[in-house]
Amino acid sequence: MRRIRLTVAYEGTAYVGWQRQPNGMSIQQRLEEAILELSGTVHGLHSSGRTDAGVHARGMVCHFDTNSRLPLKAWRDGLNSKLPDDIAVREAAEATEDFHARFSATGKHYRYRILSSRTRSPLERLIAWHVRNPLNLPAMQSAARLFIGEHDFAGFRTSGCAARTTVRQVFEVSIKTHGELIEIDVKGSGFLKNMIRMMVGTLVEIGLGRRPATDIATLLDTPGEAPPALTAPAHGLCLMEVYYGAD
Amino acid sequence: MRRIRLTVAYEGTAYVGWQRQPNGMSIQQRLEEAILELSGTVHGLHSSGRTDAGVHARGMVCHFDTNSRLPLKAWRDGLNSKLPDDIAVREAAEATEDFHARFSATGKHYRYRILSSRTRSPLERLIAWHVRNPLNLPAMQSAARLFIGEHDFAGFRTSGCAARTTVRQVFEVSIKTHGELIEIDVKGSGFLKNMIRMMVGTLVEIGLGRRPATDIATLLDTPGEAPPALTAPAHGLCLMEVYYGAD
Repeated sequence: MRRIRLTVAYEGTAYVGWQRQPNGMSIQQRLEEAILELSGTVHGLHSSGRTDAGVHARGMVCHFDTNSRLPLKAWRDGLNSKLPDDIAVREAAEATEDFHARFSATGKHYRYRILSSRTRSPLERLIAWHVRNPLNLPAMQSAARLFIGEHDFAGFRTSGCAARTTVRQVFEVSIKTHGELIEIDVKGSGFLKNMIRMMVGTLVEIGLGRRPATDIATLLDTPGEAPPALTAPAHGLCLMEVYYGAD
Repeated sequence: MRRIRLTVAYEGTAYVGWQRQPNGMSIQQRLEEAILELSGTVHGLHSSGRTDAGVHARGMVCHFDTNSRLPLKAWRDGLNSKLPDDIAVREAAEATEDFHARFSATGKHYRYRILSSRTRSPLERLIAWHVRNPLNLPAMQSAARLFIGEHDFAGFRTSGCAARTTVRQVFEVSIKTHGELIEIDVKGSGFLKNMIRMMVGTLVEIGLGRRPATDIATLLDTPGEAPPALTAPAHGLCLMEVYYGAD
């Protein structure tokens, strides 16, 4: 058996999310169908994690095992020829048998995009959360630093989250603007269900002046003592990269 | 009568282009319908020019006359509430009666996006031309300078172009990269039908090593003596801004 690691990009708009579900089409199902069509079998496709409906990816990583001797380039181009336009394999690489897309991951980089503008923007409508009221960017940037480090993020997960521990390490939260676009880059060891969307939702509430920056410390330390975090919409979020080993 | 000037953004994917046509839905028709719905009448909508099917805009400018006393903010927000998600009014402003979106324009800024990558990219598929083979960027940048200045662009227009004169002034052609994305910014006094797409197509052929940079000078001076310019696909093109007066 041979293990192949794929780096996959997708626009999540049309999908129920990464994971196979009975109620609609998933990225995973499309990829498994393409692998099956190309090689005749599919032994299961393991990803670094799930992304919700509407969330995008530039660097989702997954792996599968195969007996096929197809060269990597043929895997990459062959899968792309069978995948729809909104999903693409950016890279196919050999992986050792101890590599696991989920369990070998040491960190992830997500980017959340906000369109800060009085009017909506057609060219950003599928990839950015449109926030109409002005945002206090310095307040958001200052508050964002409170997330950095190892914390209990129990106040930043949805009730459906099944993680055994809620302690996570956030390496970096940076907020930059490009005209009307605000990009929030979050890097960390791993994230709970909806964690980044709730971090962003809280930062936006702070930027709108609707809650104090100190709420972040409260939500991290004693979650019940501040109003629950707002969850930012899915379509602003994009999985940029998954880190493995020491990178 | 009162003249109102609109700045309009759109994703052109779903439209036959700016101009009303019998064979499909246009941006113009959608806007005229929204104006009619909001104010009860529409006296014709004049734009700075047309964009082809699939071409996008961030700063298309158009104007119309109305007897309505609606405040500008209500025009902007009211039209946006009636327009589909892929068209938006970014700004509504009062214009004097001697203002004309087309005849008062003194220049335009277009941006063309190329995705230079072995594999396609889902998140850029509607806004960038995917070029698989490597491009020689310095060769393209050097060749682009040949377009700058006043030239006869007869070699850079389609047969359907009805312009009386083919002399145009190009103020600037700059080529920058952002990762795999190449952005070609072109600013000029005005452009012939398909002129920018043919400029970009020729630059890409130069970048691929398929024709010498000197072909640009030949196509400008003696168009018949070089192979005709390649027309880059519409969906990479975006009208960024229309200039008026001295700006």
